[in-house]
Amino acid sequence: MANLGFIGLGIMGKPMAGHLIAAGHTLHVYDLNPAPVRELASKGAVACTSSKQVAQKSDIIITIVPDTPDEEAVLFGKDGVAEGLRPGAIVVDMSSISPIATKEFAHRLEALGAKMLDAPVSGGQVGAQNATLSIMVGGPTDLFNQINPYFQLMGKNIVHVGGHGDGQTCKVANQIVVALTIEAVAEALLFASKAGADPAKVRLALLGGFAQSRILEIHGQRMLDRSFAPGFRIRLHQKDLNLALQGARSLGLSLPNTATAQELFNAVAAQGDSDLDHSAMLLALEKLANHKISG
Amino acid sequence: MANLGFIGLGIMGKPMAGHLIAAGHTLHVYDLNPAPVRELASKGAVACTSSKQVAQKSDIIITIVPDTPDEEAVLFGKDGVAEGLRPGAIVVDMSSISPIATKEFAHRLEALGAKMLDAPVSGGQVGAQNATLSIMVGGPTDLFNQINPYFQLMGKNIVHVGGHGDGQTCKVANQIVVALTIEAVAEALLFASKAGADPAKVRLALLGGFAQSRILEIHGQRMLDRSFAPGFRIRLHQKDLNLALQGARSLGLSLPNTATAQELFNAVAAQGDSDLDHSAMLLALEKLANHKISG
Repeated sequence: MANLGFIGLGIMGKPMAGHLIAAGHTLHVYDLNPAPVRELASKGAVACTSSKQVAQKSDIIITIVPDTPDEEAVLFGKDGVAEGLRPGAIVVDMSSISPIATKEFAHRLEALGAKMLDAPVSGGQVGAQNATLSIMVGGPTDLFNQINPYFQLMGKNIVHVGGHGDGQTCKVANQIVVALTIEAVAEALLFASKAGADPAKVRLALLGGFAQSRILEIHGQRMLDRSFAPGFRIRLHQKDLNLALQGARSLGLSLPNTATAQELFNAVAAQGDSDLDHSAMLLALEKLANHKISG
Repeated sequence: MANLGFIGLGIMGKPMAGHLIAAGHTLHVYDLNPAPVRELASKGAVACTSSKQVAQKSDIIITIVPDTPDEEAVLFGKDGVAEGLRPGAIVVDMSSISPIATKEFAHRLEALGAKMLDAPVSGGQVGAQNATLSIMVGGPTDLFNQINPYFQLMGKNIVHVGGHGDGQTCKVANQIVVALTIEAVAEALLFASKAGADPAKVRLALLGGFAQSRILEIHGQRMLDRSFAPGFRIRLHQKDLNLALQGARSLGLSLPNTATAQELFNAVAAQGDSDLDHSAMLLALEKLANHKISG
């Protein structure tokens, strides 16, 4: 059995690592925060004191950290993975970071004799705990096939999208659709309510036709209930839309509604509410309209 | 059995009227264009020469015309319904028009001793032909119950949303969600394609999670196939978003992404393509990016 490493034991990483341990794998773990390292060690993981040490002991190194600079530091910073890489090691980055930076990281690792997959996830904390994450994978097919058994321990809807960076690109596309569908539902329910119709009945009517979406179903109901506990936090979605908008600028394309959705998230964050669920984008539109859809 | 009237025998109205005739109802029909009047007369309808004449002969008058001014002309113009109304007549407007004007029309008809329901539909030509339309109804409950058997002959998903105008409000909300979800899918697939990923694989991956929608399913596939035959024409969706944006202005609310979606429809129309399916909103984004997602 391969020696596994796991770097990044936050809200997502800790339960994901837990599934690998529960399946009987030897897992070398590290996080800047020592508490989850100790916790997983008590369940059978091997505690490490740096990313370098994880790399020295592992054939497959999984990383899941908050943002692009964090991943760069884990891989190429002081005491990072690059300093301890075994020959032929495989890095599987499950963070949600820049597709463009991901391609560069893959090439830098290749130059060091290692291989890389990008494999960002969607499904949040609940998906991580229940091993029902969607996993969008970029990188060579043989590598995907080799790592897929581990993905199966952490997720359910696992898609090999294409080459290096394509998993991250797919994740950004996913976050664009989710944000813009939240805005679609928010603008529609606000219009309906301000025009005097019952937004709950409108939601029901719309679910029966072309307006149907999982966002209308789930986040539409959250808006009606004014139930904005996360779920998925606005500040994380701001990070993802930043990847979309930075990417758009450097790739040479225009994403006008993504830009506006980000501004509405910024407006909610300006009220100190960036830790609310992303369905709270509604609050910015309500403020502009001086009208609440219910309650 | 009630005497029925039907005014407006276009792409939608003609098949809808056909279902009422097929069910054995006496139907008095009128359209500015004599061809569909003759065609339905050959199937058993009673041809009329004006909206006034339809009203003189009918207890229930169904109208379905392109826009708010057309409906106003049919109801209150020269030789219009108001000139021929029977006492206690019921007007059922299945056009998609202004919710605000609808409330006014209902009050004007009430002052003339008649009653009104607004009952716009969604589902397009195919839904009209197969009697599978969604019907969103505004007006008093007793009236809804009285007319519902006729709706059942033309549609499937029939929802009583609320009072006068709420059916139209619901339809506008529907068209906001549909347009903004089309834009969500278009921005995401364009981003994915320009970043070098396969948009077909991205669509498949996204269908498995929170990004799922009927628009991603159907219109996303149309974008990949570059299959822009309508479907639902951009110029009709422009009309609907105009109702949303005019409504937003007069109700006092801001619909930023609806406004941008309308501008993108305008940009496609500026190329002479307003008779394409609304999924062709993608073409405007592609032009800005100087990039086609496939083909």
